[in-house]
Amino acid sequence: MGDTQAELRQEADALGTRHLPVDCAYGIQTMRAVENFSISGRTIADIEGFVPAIVTIKLAAARANQKTGGLSEVIAGAICAAAEACLNEVLRADFPVDIYHGGGGTAANMNVNEVLANRASEILCGRKGPHPVHPNTHVNMGQSTNDVIPSAMKIAVAGQLESLRDVLTGLVDALKEKERAFSGVVKLGRTCLQDALPVTLAQQFSGYRAAFERQSADIARIEEACLGLPLGATAVGTAFGASAAYRDAVLRELAAITGKAWHAEDNFFDALQNADFWLRLSAALKAVALTLSKFSADLRLMSSGPRAGFGEIGLPAVQPGSSIMPGKVNPVMPEMMMQVAFRVIGNDATITRAVEGELDLNVWESIILEAVSESVRLMVRGIPLFVSGCVAGISAKIDRCREDAEGSLALSTALAAIYDYPTASAVAKYAAQHGLAIRDAAVACGLMGGAAAASLFADISAFTDPMRTEALIEQFRAAHSIS
Amino acid sequence: MGDTQAELRQEADALGTRHLPVDCAYGIQTMRAVENFSISGRTIADIEGFVPAIVTIKLAAARANQKTGGLSEVIAGAICAAAEACLNEVLRADFPVDIYHGGGGTAANMNVNEVLANRASEILCGRKGPHPVHPNTHVNMGQSTNDVIPSAMKIAVAGQLESLRDVLTGLVDALKEKERAFSGVVKLGRTCLQDALPVTLAQQFSGYRAAFERQSADIARIEEACLGLPLGATAVGTAFGASAAYRDAVLRELAAITGKAWHAEDNFFDALQNADFWLRLSAALKAVALTLSKFSADLRLMSSGPRAGFGEIGLPAVQPGSSIMPGKVNPVMPEMMMQVAFRVIGNDATITRAVEGELDLNVWESIILEAVSESVRLMVRGIPLFVSGCVAGISAKIDRCREDAEGSLALSTALAAIYDYPTASAVAKYAAQHGLAIRDAAVACGLMGGAAAASLFADISAFTDPMRTEALIEQFRAAHSIS
Amino acid sequence: MGDTQAELRQEADALGTRHLPVDCAYGIQTMRAVENFSISGRTIADIEGFVPAIVTIKLAAARANQKTGGLSEVIAGAICAAAEACLNEVLRADFPVDIYHGGGGTAANMNVNEVLANRASEILCGRKGPHPVHPNTHVNMGQSTNDVIPSAMKIAVAGQLESLRDVLTGLVDALKEKERAFSGVVKLGRTCLQDALPVTLAQQFSGYRAAFERQSADIARIEEACLGLPLGATAVGTAFGASAAYRDAVLRELAAITGKAWHAEDNFFDALQNADFWLRLSAALKAVALTLSKFSADLRLMSSGPRAGFGEIGLPAVQPGSSIMPGKVNPVMPEMMMQVAFRVIGNDATITRAVEGELDLNVWESIILEAVSESVRLMVRGIPLFVSGCVAGISAKIDRCREDAEGSLALSTALAAIYDYPTASAVAKYAAQHGLAIRDAAVACGLMGGAAAASLFADISAFTDPMRTEALIEQFRAAHSIS
Amino acid sequence: MGDTQAELRQEADALGTRHLPVDCAYGIQTMRAVENFSISGRTIADIEGFVPAIVTIKLAAARANQKTGGLSEVIAGAICAAAEACLNEVLRADFPVDIYHGGGGTAANMNVNEVLANRASEILCGRKGPHPVHPNTHVNMGQSTNDVIPSAMKIAVAGQLESLRDVLTGLVDALKEKERAFSGVVKLGRTCLQDALPVTLAQQFSGYRAAFERQSADIARIEEACLGLPLGATAVGTAFGASAAYRDAVLRELAAITGKAWHAEDNFFDALQNADFWLRLSAALKAVALTLSKFSADLRLMSSGPRAGFGEIGLPAVQPGSSIMPGKVNPVMPEMMMQVAFRVIGNDATITRAVEGELDLNVWESIILEAVSESVRLMVRGIPLFVSGCVAGISAKIDRCREDAEGSLALSTALAAIYDYPTASAVAKYAAQHGLAIRDAAVACGLMGGAAAASLFADISAFTDPMRTEALIEQFRAAHSIS
Repeated sequence: MGDTQAELRQEADALGTRHLPVDCAYGIQTMRAVENFSISGRTIADIEGFVPAIVTIKLAAARANQKTGGLSEVIAGAICAAAEACLNEVLRADFPVDIYHGGGGTAANMNVNEVLANRASEILCGRKGPHPVHPNTHVNMGQSTNDVIPSAMKIAVAGQLESLRDVLTGLVDALKEKERAFSGVVKLGRTCLQDALPVTLAQQFSGYRAAFERQSADIARIEEACLGLPLGATAVGTAFGASAAYRDAVLRELAAITGKAWHAEDNFFDALQNADFWLRLSAALKAVALTLSKFSADLRLMSSGPRAGFGEIGLPAVQPGSSIMPGKVNPVMPEMMMQVAFRVIGNDATITRAVEGELDLNVWESIILEAVSESVRLMVRGIPLFVSGCVAGISAKIDRCREDAEGSLALSTALAAIYDYPTASAVAKYAAQHGLAIRDAAVACGLMGGAAAASLFADISAFTDPMRTEALIEQFRAAHSIS
Repeated sequence: MGDTQAELRQEADALGTRHLPVDCAYGIQTMRAVENFSISGRTIADIEGFVPAIVTIKLAAARANQKTGGLSEVIAGAICAAAEACLNEVLRADFPVDIYHGGGGTAANMNVNEVLANRASEILCGRKGPHPVHPNTHVNMGQSTNDVIPSAMKIAVAGQLESLRDVLTGLVDALKEKERAFSGVVKLGRTCLQDALPVTLAQQFSGYRAAFERQSADIARIEEACLGLPLGATAVGTAFGASAAYRDAVLRELAAITGKAWHAEDNFFDALQNADFWLRLSAALKAVALTLSKFSADLRLMSSGPRAGFGEIGLPAVQPGSSIMPGKVNPVMPEMMMQVAFRVIGNDATITRAVEGELDLNVWESIILEAVSESVRLMVRGIPLFVSGCVAGISAKIDRCREDAEGSLALSTALAAIYDYPTASAVAKYAAQHGLAIRDAAVACGLMGGAAAASLFADISAFTDPMRTEALIEQFRAAHSIS
Repeated sequence: MGDTQAELRQEADALGTRHLPVDCAYGIQTMRAVENFSISGRTIADIEGFVPAIVTIKLAAARANQKTGGLSEVIAGAICAAAEACLNEVLRADFPVDIYHGGGGTAANMNVNEVLANRASEILCGRKGPHPVHPNTHVNMGQSTNDVIPSAMKIAVAGQLESLRDVLTGLVDALKEKERAFSGVVKLGRTCLQDALPVTLAQQFSGYRAAFERQSADIARIEEACLGLPLGATAVGTAFGASAAYRDAVLRELAAITGKAWHAEDNFFDALQNADFWLRLSAALKAVALTLSKFSADLRLMSSGPRAGFGEIGLPAVQPGSSIMPGKVNPVMPEMMMQVAFRVIGNDATITRAVEGELDLNVWESIILEAVSESVRLMVRGIPLFVSGCVAGISAKIDRCREDAEGSLALSTALAAIYDYPTASAVAKYAAQHGLAIRDAAVACGLMGGAAAASLFADISAFTDPMRTEALIEQFRAAHSIS
Repeated sequence: MGDTQAELRQEADALGTRHLPVDCAYGIQTMRAVENFSISGRTIADIEGFVPAIVTIKLAAARANQKTGGLSEVIAGAICAAAEACLNEVLRADFPVDIYHGGGGTAANMNVNEVLANRASEILCGRKGPHPVHPNTHVNMGQSTNDVIPSAMKIAVAGQLESLRDVLTGLVDALKEKERAFSGVVKLGRTCLQDALPVTLAQQFSGYRAAFERQSADIARIEEACLGLPLGATAVGTAFGASAAYRDAVLRELAAITGKAWHAEDNFFDALQNADFWLRLSAALKAVALTLSKFSADLRLMSSGPRAGFGEIGLPAVQPGSSIMPGKVNPVMPEMMMQVAFRVIGNDATITRAVEGELDLNVWESIILEAVSESVRLMVRGIPLFVSGCVAGISAKIDRCREDAEGSLALSTALAAIYDYPTASAVAKYAAQHGLAIRDAAVACGLMGGAAAASLFADISAFTDPMRTEALIEQFRAAHSIS
C-alpha cells in the first residue's frame, strides 16, 4: 500500500487535485475526461492521423515559439523531442479521451498537451509532471483548442482523403480493365427497368469509371481546401496571444515537417464560427458512396438469377449464400458496399446537424470528425476488398446479353429515325402482340422486305456507335429512297 | 383618391398604425405578416383542416368563456356566429399568412383572431374592426398562440390521418383482391435477388397487405394520441389567464362541436416544450411511404422487361414510355409513389430538425405542420391513383412464374431436408454445372430414381405450403426408407 | 513446419476447401467471411446480446428438433451442451464476422452454426469439425438465416431496450429530485428566447421529466412488440423445412430459456419482406435522443455566463474549459449528450435507407442492427454519466431567477386579464420606454395606485399557479370594481 | 351537345385514342399524365425556368435539325415560331403535368413536344394537332427525354443559382454595412456559451459575411458546372438518332439563344446514369441554409431579452409577438429563415435518396428538381425579406456589450500571456469567488499594482487586435521587467 502510494503523483488544475500513477503518460485533465466521457469505446487515438496531427502542430508551435522568442531553447527542445518520440509511435493507451467529449475538443488538446509536457519534463528532469514543462504555459503556447483542433482535423483528414483517392484509383483501374474486356459485349440498355436501346457492357462500365474519376478529382479539390488552417486564430479568432511572427513561423514549420503548403484561412472569425467545410466534404464522400451503392445495386441486378433473373453477368462466388438453400450464392460484396453507403448517408445526417454551431465557435467538431473519418475509413477498407473480391472477377454472359438486346422492342427507334414515330410505333405494337423481333415485325407489317430488314438489323452493335448508326441509317434511306 | 382613402380603415397594434381596405377580412397583424413572410406561396389556408381547426377552437372558447363568465352573451354570440360562418367556407384570401412565418404561430393565431373579431364586430355594428369585438381581448380570451396552435395542429392532423386510413383501406382491399386472384400462381421467391424457394404470388401480396394493415393500425393509434391537447396551457404551461372552469368547458365544447373526445394533456409544460409527438407520427408516415416504395420497386422489378427482365407480372399501360423509343411503356405509377416516398423521407428530416426546440416552447410548429401535412396529402392523393392505375390491374404471367420457380437450384433444399445439406449441395452444384433442374440432377447424381424424383417434384406448389411440404417429405422418406 | 501442418484441419463448402487451425472455433464459411468483409473493426460479437441471442435460438431449436424427432438425443444433446457453454462466455475471437457482411446475415448465422457444430463434434468425438455434428444439417435444422437473424435481432434489442429504460428511470428519478428542490424557485419563462410569463424551475423540470416518462413508456411498448418473431418462417416465409410441431416447440423452448413470451408473427411474408419495425424503434430512440439534446441545450443556455449569460442555474464543474483561457468551465456533459443525439439522428437516416429492402427479404439487417444498437448503447452509457456528472448537481441561482421574472414586460398579461389587451399593451410599451417594471409602469400610467399595484405583484410566484392567479385577479377586480 | 362534340379533336398514341378540346394546347400524352399524376398541386410550370429551358432546347434543336438536314425549313420554322411564342409567355394551364410524374420525365418532355407541335401545326394549317408537325417525329427529333430533361434541369437551375447569388450579394452588402457600423463595438466572445475573450461586433459579423462570400463563390462554381449538358446522349447515352453534326449544332444554337457557353458532358453514360451532381449542388445550398440558420440563431441569442437575456443587440420589431402577452416582440425574421433551413435539410435528404438510380438512367429527376428548386426559391425569396426586415436594422447595445466583455474572467488570458497559466488561473479563481473583475483581482492577489492593472486593462478593445495586444503585453513586460 505504501508502495502504491509512493507510485502516485499529485496534479492540480482549476477544479482541484487528483492523484495519478507516477508514470501515467497523461495528466489530471485527461483523467477527468476519461471519467466524464467514456461512453463509445472509441477514443481520439482511433481516428486515423488525428493525434499525430495534433502532435505535429505542437512540434511546429514549439519550434516557432523558440524562434520567435516565446520559449527557451531548453524547453522548446524538450517539447520537440517529446513530440518526435510521440510521432514515432502513438500509444493508444496514452490518448484515452472518448470521441464524444464535450467542450469543443479541449480534452483532446489537453490530452496531447499533457502527454508532451509530461514527457518533456521527464526528458529534462527525469520525472513526468507539469514542471518544468507545463502543458498550457509551454506546450500550448500561442494556441487555443479552438484553432488547434480544427487545424488538426484538416491535417488528419487530408491524409485520409489521399488514401481514399488511392483506393478509388484502384477501382478505376479495375473498371478500365473491364471496359477493355467488355468492349465487344452488346447488351440491352434499360431505362425505368424496361427494355431500351442497346449499349455495350464497356460503355456501361465507362459510366461507372467516369463517375469515380470525376469524384476522385472532386476529392482532390477538397484535399487542397484542407490546406487552409485557422492556426493562429487562438480562442475567438482575434489571435490573442499569438504574435504575428509566431503565426507566420508556425505555418512555415508545419510545412517543413509535413511537406505540404499549409496556409492561414482568410477570415479567422468565419473559420471558427462555421463548419460548412465539412458539409462540402461529406457531400463528396456521399457522392462516392452512393455511386458505389448504385454500381453495386446494378451488379446485383445484372447478376440476378442465376437462372431466373437478368443473368447478364457473373460475379465471383466468395461466400456460400444460404444456411438452408444449398447451391445459393449471393452478391455479398456489392451488399457490403451498399451497407457502407447507408452508413455514409447516416454520417452525413449527423454532420448536417453538427455544423450548426453557435456564436464564435462550432463546438461539435468531435462528432463531425468521427463521422467523416468513419465514412472515409469504411470506403478505404471496403473498396479494395470490393475490387479484388468482386469487380475484378466480373464475367459477361455474352450470348444472353446479345439475345436480350436483339429482342428489344426499342429497336423500333431505328424505324422512327428512318420513317417516323407513328410508323415505328405501329411496328413495335405489332411485334409486341405477335411476339416478334422488330426486324421480323417490320417485314410482317410490310414496311420493308426481308433483305432490307436483315441489312438494317444485321449487327445491332452498330446501334451502340453513333457514327455507325448514322451511316447505317443514311445508307438505308439512300438504298430505299426515303427522304 | 379621396374615394380610395375613404375605403380604408386604420388599425393600431403595439408597433404602430396601418391602413387596410375597409372590408379587408383580416387586420393589422396579418397585414404585417403578409409583408414579412410571403416566401413560399403556401399559406396557412393551404394546410388541410388547419384554419378550420383554429376557428373551431375559437368557437369552443367563445362558448366556454360565455358559460364561465368571461364574455357577455352579445360578444360571445357574435364571435360564435362569425366562427360558424367561417367554418362554412374558408376563403383562402382571408388567411394569407405564409407557412414560413416565425414567432411560433402567433401570426396564424392572430390571423384567425382578427378575421373573427372583424366579422363579429361587423355583425354587431356593421363595420369590421377591433371594436366592439377585439381579436386579443375577446376572441383570444383564455388562450395563447402557444396552446391554440399545437391544439389546432392535432385537430387538423387527426382529420388528415383519417383520410389516410381510408385510402390505405382501399389499397388493402385491392391487395386482398389480388391475393384471391393470385392464390394459384406459384413463383420464384428471391432473396439477395438470387433464385430461392417458391412462393405463391398471393403469399407475396399477403405480405404487402399485412404491412399496410399493420401500419394503418399504427396510424389509428396516433390518431388516438391526437386527442390529447395542450389547450388551456396558455403561454408557458401555467394556464395563466385560463380559469379552471374555462379549461374544462372549452374541451367539452370542442367535443360537442366535433364529436371527438378531446382531453387535456397530462403535463402542459411537457406539451409545450416537446414536439416529439410529431417524430412518432412522421415515423409512422415514413413506414407507410417506404413500404409503398418497396412495394413499388418490387412491381418495377417483377414487371421488368417486357422481354428481358423478370417478366413475372404485367402492369396496366397508362402512359407511353418514351419520346424516342416507340412501344416502350414504363411503370410510371410505382415511380410516382416512390418519389412520394422520397419526399416523405425529406419531410421526416425536416421534422427531425424542427423538434429540437428550446426552453418553454417549441416554436418550429409551422414547418412541422407543413411537412407532416404534405406527407399525408401526397399519400392521400397518390394512393387512390396508384390503386386504380396500377395495383388493381396487375396481371400475373403464370407460365413464366412457374417455369422460373421450377428451375431454381434452391429446390435442392428439399433434398437437404430429406438427406442432408452436403448431399443436397452436391446435387445443386451438379445441376448448376450441367444446366439441369434439381429433379433431373438428383437422378443424374444417382440420389434417387426418376420416378421418385418425379413424385417429389411433381407439383412445386406443394413447397409453398408447410403442411403439404411436411407431408410430402415424410411420405418420401417413408417410401424410400430414409431415417 | 511439419508441426504447423499437423495442426491444420481441412474443411469444405460449396465453393471449395480451406485449411483452418485445428482448434479454430469457427469453420470455413466464417473464415471466408473474415477475408471478405473485415472493414469496420466491429464484429457481430460487439453487438450487445446478439451472438447470445443467436445461440439461444440454436439451443431452443436443438431442443425442439429433438422433441419433434428431427435430431437424435445424442446430436441434440451435444448441440445443447455446446450452446450452453457458449452462452456462459462469448469469446469475441470466435465470432469475427464483420458487421458489414453482405448476404442478409448468412455469415453471422453460419458463424454460430459452425462454432456450435465444432464444439458439439468435439464433445462427441474429441475434435472440432462438421462431423458428426454438421452446422447446416444439424445446428441449423428447421431454420434459415432469414428467420434466425431477424429473430435474434429482436431478442437482443429487447434486452438492450430494458437497459435503456433502466437508465431513463435513473434520469427521471434525478429530475424528480430536482423538481422537489426547485419547487420554490420562480423564474422567467421564455418563448422565442424572449421574456415571457413566470414559471417555477420545478415546473420546467417537470416538463423534461414527463417527456422522458412518456418516452420510456413508448420504449416499453416496443419491447413488447419485440416479442413477435418470424422464427419458423425459414427462407422465404413458407416455413419450408420447419414442421408445425417444430415451430410450436421452438417458441416454447425459447420462452422456457429466456422467461419471455415470444410468439410467432402474424404474417411471415410481411415479417421477412418488411423492416419498418426498426423505423418505429429508431423513431422512439430519436425521440429520447432529441429530448436529451433539447434538455442539454436548455441547460447550456440557462447556465450560460457565468456572468454575461442567462445565469439561472449552475452546472457542476467537471472539466477545465479551456487550454488558453484560465477559469473557464464548459457545459461538457450536456455537450456530450448532444453529440450522442447527433449520432442517433444519423443512425436513423441509415436505418431509413436500409428498411427499403426488395422482394421476399430485407437483406440490410446487419446495418440496421448496428445502427440501432449503437443508438441504444450510447444512451445507455451516456445517460448515467450525464445524471451523475451534471443533472444531479444542478443548482438554482434563486435571486437571479426571481429578478429576471419580476422584470418581465410580459407581466402585463395580468393587466390584460384584468382590463383588456390594448390597455395592457400601452402599459407594457410605457414600461419598455422608461425602463420600468410593469407594476411601476401601471402606476405611472395612472391605471392603478401604488398599493393596488403592490398587492397585485406582491409575489409573482402566484402567477405560476392557475388557482392562485385566478383568485388574485378576481380579488383585484372585486376590490377595484372592475367588471 | 352537338356543339361540344364539334369542339373536340381526337388524338392517338400507342395506348389508344382520346378526345381533347379542339383548342387544347397540349395533346393526348399530357392528358393521360394529368389523369395519372395529379397529386401535389404543383406542375412542371411551377418550377422556375424549367418549361422555358425545355422550350429553349426544342428551339435550338429545331434550328439544328434544319441546318443539318433533318427538318424542312417549313417545319423547323413553324416549330421555332411556336417555341418563341411560348418563351414570351409560359401559360401555366398549358403545362399541367404534376411534378410527381413517373417515367423519368417523359411526360414533361412530351407536354412540351405536344404544345409546340400543336402550335406549329396551327401556324401551318390553322388547327392544332400532330399534323403536319408531330411532337415526336419533328419536335423531339434527335432528342430523348433522357437527354432533354437533365439538360433542361441544368439550364433552369443555372438561372436560379444566378438569382441566389444576387440575393446573397445583397446579404453580404448588408453585413458589410453592419461591419462598418459595428467596428467600434467591443463585446464578449463566447465559446460553449461561456464568457470568453472580447471581439468586436464587426469581427463577429465579418465571419458571417465571409461565410456567405465563400458560399456564393462555391455556388458560382456549380453554375459553371451546369454548363456541361448531356444533350445529344439521347436515350441511353449512345447518341442514337442524333448525328454528330446535329450534336454540335444544337449546343451552338443553344449558346446563341441564351448567351451561355454550354458544352457536352465528357461521358454521356456517366451523365445519364449518375445524378450526384445534384448532391454537390444540394450540399452547397445546405451550406448556405445552415449558415443562415446559424446566423439567425445567433441573432435570436444576442437579442434575447429584452431584459433577461443576452441583450447585446436589438432587432427591428416587425410583428407583435404574442396574442396573450402584451409588449412581447419576437425575432420572427430569423425564425422564418431557420425554418427555411429546416426545409432545405429535408430537401437534401430527398435528393440523397433520389440520386440512387439504376442501370442506364436515373429516373428520379423530377423530385430532385422539385427539391433543389424549392430550396433555391425559399432562399431567393426569403433572404431579401430577412435583409430588409432584420439584418439592415440590427442595432448594437454598446454599453451592455462593453460591460459584459469587461467582466469576463477570460481576460485572465492576458495574465497567462504575461506570467503563466497557473498564475492566471489563480487570479481567475479569486475573481470568480469574490465577484471581481480580473483587473481588480490581479491587484487583490498582489500580482500587480493598481496603476499597472489600470494600464493593462485600460481599453479592452486592444485585445480584439493582435497587433495592439502584442504591443500592450510587450510594453507591460518591459515596464515590469518580466522575462
